Amino acid sequence: MENIIILASNNKNKLKEITAKLNPFGIKVISQKEAGYDIEVEETGTTFQENAILKAEAIYELSNKPVIAEDSGLEVDFLNGDPGVYSARYAGENATDEDKCNKILNLMKDVKDDNKRTARFKCAICYIDANGIKHIFEQSCEGIIAKEPHGNNGFGYDPIFMIENKSFAEITQEEKNEISHRGKAIKELVNYIKNSK
Amino acid sequence: MENIIILASNNKNKLKEITAKLNPFGIKVISQKEAGYDIEVEETGTTFQENAILKAEAIYELSNKPVIAEDSGLEVDFLNGDPGVYSARYAGENATDEDKCNKILNLMKDVKDDNKRTARFKCAICYIDANGIKHIFEQSCEGIIAKEPHGNNGFGYDPIFMIENKSFAEITQEEKNEISHRGKAIKELVNYIKNSK
Repeated sequence: MENIIILASNNKNKLKEITAKLNPFGIKVISQKEAGYDIEVEETGTTFQENAILKAEAIYELSNKPVIAEDSGLEVDFLNGDPGVYSARYAGENATDEDKCNKILNLMKDVKDDNKRTARFKCAICYIDANGIKHIFEQSCEGIIAKEPHGNNGFGYDPIFMIENKSFAEITQEEKNEISHRGKAIKELVNYIKNSK
Repeated sequence: MENIIILASNNKNKLKEITAKLNPFGIKVISQKEAGYDIEVEETGTTFQENAILKAEAIYELSNKPVIAEDSGLEVDFLNGDPGVYSARYAGENATDEDKCNKILNLMKDVKDDNKRTARFKCAICYIDANGIKHIFEQSCEGIIAKEPHGNNGFGYDPIFMIENKSFAEITQEEKNEISHRGKAIKELVNYIKNSK
């Protein structure tokens, strides 16, 4: 069993979350930058799964070492699945999280019925093991788009994503890890790695 | 560990090959038709991997049971990777294997240097396990496009694909299982399933 896995991302929050979960099993997670691969992979996929695979493949091809990559975002039914894979750049490259939330709130300002405001966060993780075999973990979390932002925790679309009358920006990180798309996908990944040791 | 896996294909040769390899581990492989899913999945992917995933996902969504799907084909460097994912329908929907081989031979009739006739067979297998997690196995086999067809074993592009001075249609099935893209990918799959039992 390999002891180092490269995370195909330089996002410190993701690194911290995944490191904390894999450390107890003697696995060290390092960022792609720490591993010496200071590249930006173009996310040209049409699904989260495709983007996660693209990112993991790019780093695996350079390093030939175990890699984890993640892609996630929000799908709003009223917007036919948008922002989807464009979640990060939905309001332009340099837009703030607030801009992105406001864009959705504006597009949906006339939608009064919560049954028409359904949405889900999705997360896909691609883990390429020491043999070059890819393993895909996908999870989602169903919710409702709020009519205005709520709470200060979280980031991205969290303030407008409601689950059981609280937004993702109103719950604690621990609660979020339990129910969120990313928390559940990481749990699946960790179980898989634990059992394949 | 699940005991039945659905093969997302009705190809009898593939079914026979995969069944023979998994039977010793107490796993029964049935075709999608036997499982009751008489559908044709559109192979809209741009890579073998994407097509294998598409086919496996389609049957998994209907059955919620473990699924194996495979996609494979030939990449010719002089033809910029063609026929690639179009390998099966490269000379039209109803063309014979001979038509397909002849199309490539004609397109390459002026290419005398074997160093410019390089090609590879590629195979991607997607296995979705009982938990819905996808595992991808990819293998390739490097060769040279012959200047004319050789041998009567095999099928598809085998008569024009040379490896160490013999075509894929001149070697036995046992030799082919050892070195071919599909043989190696199936071996990886079987090892994986065996070790995850």
